[in-house]
Amino acid sequence: MHFKMNEAIELLERTPQTLEYFLSGLSEGWLHCNEGEGTWNAIEVVEHLIEGEKNNWIPRLEFILQEISNNPFPPFDRFSHLKNMSQTSIDQKLQEFKAIRMQNISKLKSLIEPDLHLELEGSHPAFGTVKVRELLSTWVVHDLTHISQIVRVMAERYRADVGPWEEYLGILKETKH
Amino acid sequence: MHFKMNEAIELLERTPQTLEYFLSGLSEGWLHCNEGEGTWNAIEVVEHLIEGEKNNWIPRLEFILQEISNNPFPPFDRFSHLKNMSQTSIDQKLQEFKAIRMQNISKLKSLIEPDLHLELEGSHPAFGTVKVRELLSTWVVHDLTHISQIVRVMAERYRADVGPWEEYLGILKETKH
Repeated sequence: MHFKMNEAIELLERTPQTLEYFLSGLSEGWLHCNEGEGTWNAIEVVEHLIEGEKNNWIPRLEFILQEISNNPFPPFDRFSHLKNMSQTSIDQKLQEFKAIRMQNISKLKSLIEPDLHLELEGSHPAFGTVKVRELLSTWVVHDLTHISQIVRVMAERYRADVGPWEEYLGILKETKH
Repeated sequence: MHFKMNEAIELLERTPQTLEYFLSGLSEGWLHCNEGEGTWNAIEVVEHLIEGEKNNWIPRLEFILQEISNNPFPPFDRFSHLKNMSQTSIDQKLQEFKAIRMQNISKLKSLIEPDLHLELEGSHPAFGTVKVRELLSTWVVHDLTHISQIVRVMAERYRADVGPWEEYLGILKETKH
């Protein structure tokens, strides 16, 4: 086990600006490419990250802290952003993600006293008992999963272009998740 | 085929600063973790990217343009950075990567006229005939591979911490390359 609050926050606070630097100003070709039918482009991944900030991590944390842990979390719809496609630009979405993430990190710091709260338990609708520590670790790894997804989607766009080097490029061997 | 010089350069110029924002100031735990014996941590990945700037992409491009394409490229040792471990800090390495990448993008722009040069051929020591377009596409996807590697290595650190959520986190299902 490696989880430490301060180290987790280091990554949580870097994700929005890392994505902002990487995605802002990119050509449409990079922003709109995906891995085929039913897969997400970079913009949809950012929308999904915003959705998680609104309806997943902090609401579930508050649910556990309110000691109503016998009730399972309200389910989180991982595809809801696809039903509510907003017309804002990628730059607006990146700003929205950054703003709500910064608010949520402040809330996290105010809600959680690591020595007291990390082992508190809630009930996940699919997994059963889960701990605050696991929820917060998952928030971090969820960011990493989606950064990885964005770069994998972009790599896929050049699969044919790299010619025989495909064999050396590990990212082109990863499966879609 | 999707390769366009201007779009490729968009990604090549973003990689150093994206990594700088993501890695600078991180705790030792994140910078030094790896995926086990024989795998690289984030610092070693940055060292490998610097090595590629020095000895791989532009030297091979110049080799093709000098029309000595009957000779194979000098081989590139993908592990050489491990033999020459430098003692500079991660911030110094990130600055070095950014500086040499910016120089190399300038050189790329001065060397390559897309309408004339993209289909020129060289001889890869393992693959045989390769084109300039394939070399440049590979430079881009190589960046993406290693950004993906860095986030995957960090995700691995929390594999046990996420508890039952491991099942939902695609990045923890990827294999090491």
